Amino acid sequence: MVNVAILGFGTVGSGVAEVLTTNGGLIDNRVRDLVRLKYILDVRDFPDSPYKDCFVKDFAVIESDPEVDIVVETIGGAKIALEFTARALKAGKSVVTSNKELVATHGCELLQLAREHGCSYLFEASVGGGIPILRPLTSCLAANELEQITGILNGTTNYILTRMIRAGLTFEQALKEAQTNGYAEKDPTADVDGHDACRKICILADLAFGRQVDPALVPTEGIRNVTLEDVAYADSVGYQIKLLGRCLRQEEGRVCAFVAPHLVPAENPLSGVEDVFNAIAVTGNAIGDVMFYGRGAGKLPTASAVVADVIDIAKDLKKDRHNGWEAGSPDLVVSADYLMSPWYVRGQMSADQARKSCGEVQLLARSGAPAGECAFLTAPMTEPEVKEKLAGLEVGSRIRVLS
Amino acid sequence: MVNVAILGFGTVGSGVAEVLTTNGGLIDNRVRDLVRLKYILDVRDFPDSPYKDCFVKDFAVIESDPEVDIVVETIGGAKIALEFTARALKAGKSVVTSNKELVATHGCELLQLAREHGCSYLFEASVGGGIPILRPLTSCLAANELEQITGILNGTTNYILTRMIRAGLTFEQALKEAQTNGYAEKDPTADVDGHDACRKICILADLAFGRQVDPALVPTEGIRNVTLEDVAYADSVGYQIKLLGRCLRQEEGRVCAFVAPHLVPAENPLSGVEDVFNAIAVTGNAIGDVMFYGRGAGKLPTASAVVADVIDIAKDLKKDRHNGWEAGSPDLVVSADYLMSPWYVRGQMSADQARKSCGEVQLLARSGAPAGECAFLTAPMTEPEVKEKLAGLEVGSRIRVLS
Repeated sequence: MVNVAILGFGTVGSGVAEVLTTNGGLIDNRVRDLVRLKYILDVRDFPDSPYKDCFVKDFAVIESDPEVDIVVETIGGAKIALEFTARALKAGKSVVTSNKELVATHGCELLQLAREHGCSYLFEASVGGGIPILRPLTSCLAANELEQITGILNGTTNYILTRMIRAGLTFEQALKEAQTNGYAEKDPTADVDGHDACRKICILADLAFGRQVDPALVPTEGIRNVTLEDVAYADSVGYQIKLLGRCLRQEEGRVCAFVAPHLVPAENPLSGVEDVFNAIAVTGNAIGDVMFYGRGAGKLPTASAVVADVIDIAKDLKKDRHNGWEAGSPDLVVSADYLMSPWYVRGQMSADQARKSCGEVQLLARSGAPAGECAFLTAPMTEPEVKEKLAGLEVGSRIRVLS
Repeated sequence: MVNVAILGFGTVGSGVAEVLTTNGGLIDNRVRDLVRLKYILDVRDFPDSPYKDCFVKDFAVIESDPEVDIVVETIGGAKIALEFTARALKAGKSVVTSNKELVATHGCELLQLAREHGCSYLFEASVGGGIPILRPLTSCLAANELEQITGILNGTTNYILTRMIRAGLTFEQALKEAQTNGYAEKDPTADVDGHDACRKICILADLAFGRQVDPALVPTEGIRNVTLEDVAYADSVGYQIKLLGRCLRQEEGRVCAFVAPHLVPAENPLSGVEDVFNAIAVTGNAIGDVMFYGRGAGKLPTASAVVADVIDIAKDLKKDRHNGWEAGSPDLVVSADYLMSPWYVRGQMSADQARKSCGEVQLLARSGAPAGECAFLTAPMTEPEVKEKLAGLEVGSRIRVLS
């Protein structure tokens, strides 16, 4: 018998309880043991819940019960979740989580704690929701030197951008619609300003390159400044505007990581990823490019990934998974200033001014453009170069093209 | 020290040697032991190969060397490869392969043999080349009741169809080009008639549903009958013609599996999979839809998957992986006759005849269509229904629409 406790009965926590129940028979078969939900920790009361006999309000009950093997942390944040995770690991209980903030900021120390206490800390659901990505990265792609990862990592912003592209909504209108549909929080900052995508690209970089990348060191730009004009110009050449998290291997174990909107050409499979879907493209030196695609959020998809981790641990409670990474350092993250790419530029200028400043450019057109508006794609160059060339011009938007 | 022997120094076998060498340092790190290539079995001589000291011509040398832990079988086919695989497993050596024919036809018995002799039989590279799919299916999606799998599983046919769509080549021209580029064999039967895709969908069904699906029981149609007219009509509504392998869970442990060309609507991410790329979409009851995308063939991508299996085994040589499936039976495979979908139909008939026979239809147009040609999409119906409705009419093509 393997006993599970869930911390936090919100969307993901209740989804985990539901999957453990609905698919209980096949889960027991796969584990070759009985996996049972013993506790749910929540401050609220759920008198009508089918799990009402499981609820406890004091974490110490779970911590001190030797029958509890696996703790599922779906509280979120990096405060009480950090405390409970550390206490569970110290009590020798493996912890599974979907909490990207906690993994991105404290993953290294929590993995170390798990190793010291002979248990595991797994977090497949922290990136890409239900999409299998972290385990494939470390097992199926283990024969590769990983070179870079590029991901549409946040479903909320991808939904907003899709609605701007498909329905012609402004950013504000699309955000409001996303909030109405439950795809965006009342306070959408973490999503629309790129912080959520930043945490996820940091976790991917940690696993791919072996050192903890501090989200605070990663330049992060969201989608607030993307306009319908930009969407229309991008569309005129078949490009889609997507918020991408990117990390690239550098020399001497360093990492270039950043989050920013990009123009994605139609031939890149990331361009076809719409609505709340996520996709993560990985480049390895043997495999070339592979891409993982699916629902990056939602109750049951996320619970699917959490329970897969529960099954993995339940199959072998004391296995040393060797999964961890080294601590980071302030100079770990390299600026993307070296990275050549074409740039999309929109501004108040003439085509002649555009050519004079940036050399050979591809002029773009949209219907209804006011006099004096000019938009174009540059030849590949670095960000410092394009900034210098555009100095003194009236630039409205400048967005990197994924190349 | 973990010693590896490669059987067959062809494209994949030499790729495995190359990846083991090029990425040797990181592989040793991940295994926490030294992984060394000890033997390569091939009937040919390779006096200039960097691995020339590894070559042997007699399998008994490998079989009887107690130092050999893992045998990589890249011979192909189900004759000598079957014999050597069985002998290696009986000698307690784990076997890794990319040989889909052998896994599809003898997987159940070889997995049983591996269990009996305390070793493993792994075959990630047999489906989707380098794309991580089999391990994610059985580990990351373990919390799901899997409902169906739909895959573009053969790069050769996808290349041919892409060239017909993009360059207007006929099937014969595109096939010749694929042969010139090394994407198709001199004898292209296994690819263009769907047998390769059939073996792969069988392996996916074995793993997803737990019983061996005999490829001989799976209705298999290739792409020889797809014409440029069909491609043009499909394109007129934004659909792509793709060769799909499909399997669907049925009641009482049975399976519906088949291989056939389909019209794929633009909103389905499989429609954007071009050239030699493969993609596999999986539907589970918790996760919904996920898709795995990448190069389905090629020396290094396939070697990447083979070496990932080698690493997995080398990390724990005696682990019981519990990965196997039950034997099949003659009544295991259920016909797709029950499956409702719209149908694409092209024939020599009038629009009135089309409507009279099939009810409400969506008429399609293409430039240069000769008089009397009519093409349309039907409402959703089963294959027996559409056949009955079209009886007596002069039908040139009838292709299922993926819905």
